[in-house]
Amino acid sequence: MPEIFFNPKSIAIIGATSNPKKFGNSVTKNLLQNPNLSAEIYLVSLGSKEINGIKTHSSIFDIPHPIDLAILLVPAKFVPSVVDDCIKKPVKRIIIVTAGFGEMGLEGKKIEQNIAQKCRTAGIRVIGPNCVGIENCNRGMNASFIQTPRTGNISFVSQSGSFGAGCLYEFAEQDMGCAKFTNLGNAIDLSFNEVLEYYRTDSETQVIAIYLESLKDGRKFYKSLQKLAKDKPVVVLKGGRTSTGLAAAESHTGSIASNYIILKTAVEQAGGVMCESMSDYIAALKTFSYLPNPKGNRIGILTSSGGSGVLYSDQAEEYGVSLHQFPEELKNKIRPLFGPLVKIRNPLDMIAGATEENYYQVTKIMLESKDIDIVVPLSLVPPFMQQEPQEHMRGVLRAWNETGRKKPVIPLMVYAEGFKELQQLRSENDFPLFFTPKEAAYSTKLLIDRMKFLQRT
Amino acid sequence: MPEIFFNPKSIAIIGATSNPKKFGNSVTKNLLQNPNLSAEIYLVSLGSKEINGIKTHSSIFDIPHPIDLAILLVPAKFVPSVVDDCIKKPVKRIIIVTAGFGEMGLEGKKIEQNIAQKCRTAGIRVIGPNCVGIENCNRGMNASFIQTPRTGNISFVSQSGSFGAGCLYEFAEQDMGCAKFTNLGNAIDLSFNEVLEYYRTDSETQVIAIYLESLKDGRKFYKSLQKLAKDKPVVVLKGGRTSTGLAAAESHTGSIASNYIILKTAVEQAGGVMCESMSDYIAALKTFSYLPNPKGNRIGILTSSGGSGVLYSDQAEEYGVSLHQFPEELKNKIRPLFGPLVKIRNPLDMIAGATEENYYQVTKIMLESKDIDIVVPLSLVPPFMQQEPQEHMRGVLRAWNETGRKKPVIPLMVYAEGFKELQQLRSENDFPLFFTPKEAAYSTKLLIDRMKFLQRT
Repeated sequence: MPEIFFNPKSIAIIGATSNPKKFGNSVTKNLLQNPNLSAEIYLVSLGSKEINGIKTHSSIFDIPHPIDLAILLVPAKFVPSVVDDCIKKPVKRIIIVTAGFGEMGLEGKKIEQNIAQKCRTAGIRVIGPNCVGIENCNRGMNASFIQTPRTGNISFVSQSGSFGAGCLYEFAEQDMGCAKFTNLGNAIDLSFNEVLEYYRTDSETQVIAIYLESLKDGRKFYKSLQKLAKDKPVVVLKGGRTSTGLAAAESHTGSIASNYIILKTAVEQAGGVMCESMSDYIAALKTFSYLPNPKGNRIGILTSSGGSGVLYSDQAEEYGVSLHQFPEELKNKIRPLFGPLVKIRNPLDMIAGATEENYYQVTKIMLESKDIDIVVPLSLVPPFMQQEPQEHMRGVLRAWNETGRKKPVIPLMVYAEGFKELQQLRSENDFPLFFTPKEAAYSTKLLIDRMKFLQRT
Repeated sequence: MPEIFFNPKSIAIIGATSNPKKFGNSVTKNLLQNPNLSAEIYLVSLGSKEINGIKTHSSIFDIPHPIDLAILLVPAKFVPSVVDDCIKKPVKRIIIVTAGFGEMGLEGKKIEQNIAQKCRTAGIRVIGPNCVGIENCNRGMNASFIQTPRTGNISFVSQSGSFGAGCLYEFAEQDMGCAKFTNLGNAIDLSFNEVLEYYRTDSETQVIAIYLESLKDGRKFYKSLQKLAKDKPVVVLKGGRTSTGLAAAESHTGSIASNYIILKTAVEQAGGVMCESMSDYIAALKTFSYLPNPKGNRIGILTSSGGSGVLYSDQAEEYGVSLHQFPEELKNKIRPLFGPLVKIRNPLDMIAGATEENYYQVTKIMLESKDIDIVVPLSLVPPFMQQEPQEHMRGVLRAWNETGRKKPVIPLMVYAEGFKELQQLRSENDFPLFFTPKEAAYSTKLLIDRMKFLQRT
């Protein structure tokens, strides 16, 4: 059912404005500025005769074409009558961006219920009100007032619009790409579960991101997660886990939030990942967006920093991931590469001064070994000996590419977010970077959990 | 006792080299390139006649001046005889950077014990071997092969050199400054506790950062922490918390690591902070480096992103920090600033579109209120309506400055690390930024814990 929302042939923006200080302007600009979007776009505006060189219409009835999707940006008090116009036209789908309804109290709730009822009768599906909108990135459609992420394989449904925007900033920072983005706002019609089902069948979606504050039907959600998780990794973050957070969430979305422990158990039983923080959430999405499933749980670690290898080992064990000892066969392959200062064990501490060639050779040996399923190359960018910040990872990448990227590699660059050269290597070569031992250990755990889940089902 | 290490009048670099691919070159360059360093520097080299325009000496005896500090970079096999030369000269202090001693096994241990014994007899204190060196940032002395952080109030002692370097990268990213840095390596003479005692009495040190893998004398460490924590916040991260990490740590530093739970309890009883991850470690140091102690535990939160306010509330409660309701007096002051869409409660969700002026006014009201002890301004940089990424925090900063920065303000910019304008605002105005709800909640908890600890003692 959401198909027409994400792939409309024609869009009417009602309440478009040339005033850059208003939301309506952002939505209008976002829709107009993408040359790849093939939909026809019509602007309905009372205040502006022309916006971005496009003549506006004074009402939806003045548009001499059928409209698939109407996006409503007019003030709350005008929304009911504009919805009536949309029904009369008729349009196929409506997104109400405008806030000031159910989240304000009983009166607003009545108004939005009334809108929902009318549209249901007319066979028109509705997203919103009180939402930031939706995006179909691969089609170049940004029907929201937030930013446009790069295209990719993550589809995201967020119950908080601004939190969704925050995540998209981090997607950009970490070079993660999006397929679809949805914020349902007060969700008077189109439901969370319908969006999830759409994502499940969408061929561009390989990972599903959910930010949840409240649930209308927990049982339905559980069933839809069960179906979903078999096909695609599902990553969930819940706002309102504690009584304090719950109170804040109720105020925010106007609906009663559910018991966290029950929800967490249900998500995990269904095969989804329940994250405890934003950082974990981003790490989980990055992992599934970039890395293939492992075939087993044997991890090989190489590092230039002993301390960071220790911290990774700690965090891994705290996540229930244990390191195995290298078998003799593997040790014998690694030993000739190093002098006496390097002890041949797991984690392999190649000590400060390890070179690109060391990283290449050891990563390759591990990727080709039948005794290693996941490789964790850990590098502390050396600030000495004229080494380049990206050289270790260049070696890792070469080994990963030469072996067809069949095994997951979790590249950990300890606290090196700031390096331009590294960011460039990443964006040119389409691989993820992790920045703390904890993040890399969490990623390892998730890959192993997912493998076990897929083996069970 | 460590005074002469950090403030030598003359330094001899023994094993200086012009080969940029060797550690020795990095140490030499680090010491020479700082124009603020007033110490005389002499180079001893067999390979190079001149390095960076400075003539070298072929032995320490050729230097016609007294030497306070000798830094040894020569290969391990030459170290014992060079130490003999240093004793004969005599020098006052020795740093042995060279690796290949106790961490290699029994034979190496014997050699370093022998060196320690000789130096003790001669009254010469030693740092190392197998270390990256030390730094006195305010004096412009970088006697290490790692990078030079900006000057500041954090003094750092790390049992892993490379991990220390990783943290210094993150200090740069987050605009945190250093007073002193020490890596003792195998620590055959100068001890951890002596360094801590030196930091305690050092007037430039206001926060103490410890990275620990193993302890020689737990009881002494506890006593020195007790003394320390009363004067200055002490932040500890332990590598080798788990059996996996322990095994990795033993291989790394060559000494037996201690039971984590006992250590954690001891650190916390002594009044220190024990962190569970690198991210927490950086967050704790940032907090104490920048923020004053609160007078109470009443937190006022303002936000432009409801979802992020919910996540902060969750994380705060998970850290045992509860939010109180705003008293009527405070609500009455805030209410006139907003329209009906903004509910006057804690957290105050000013909704997307909140302005610089909103942030300024609400932060100021909270900072001036007798009912608020800590202010948490939470902003999601709006990607719409032509708002600037730094404008919310500009408002917060103005309010903080106008009230004399007496109360702690924890500015949370959700996932906005990448914004140049924000980084510039920060570096020009000397204030911290936090980037995830969890980080800000952890910072809140630490400030309250520290306040309670100081009230108790």
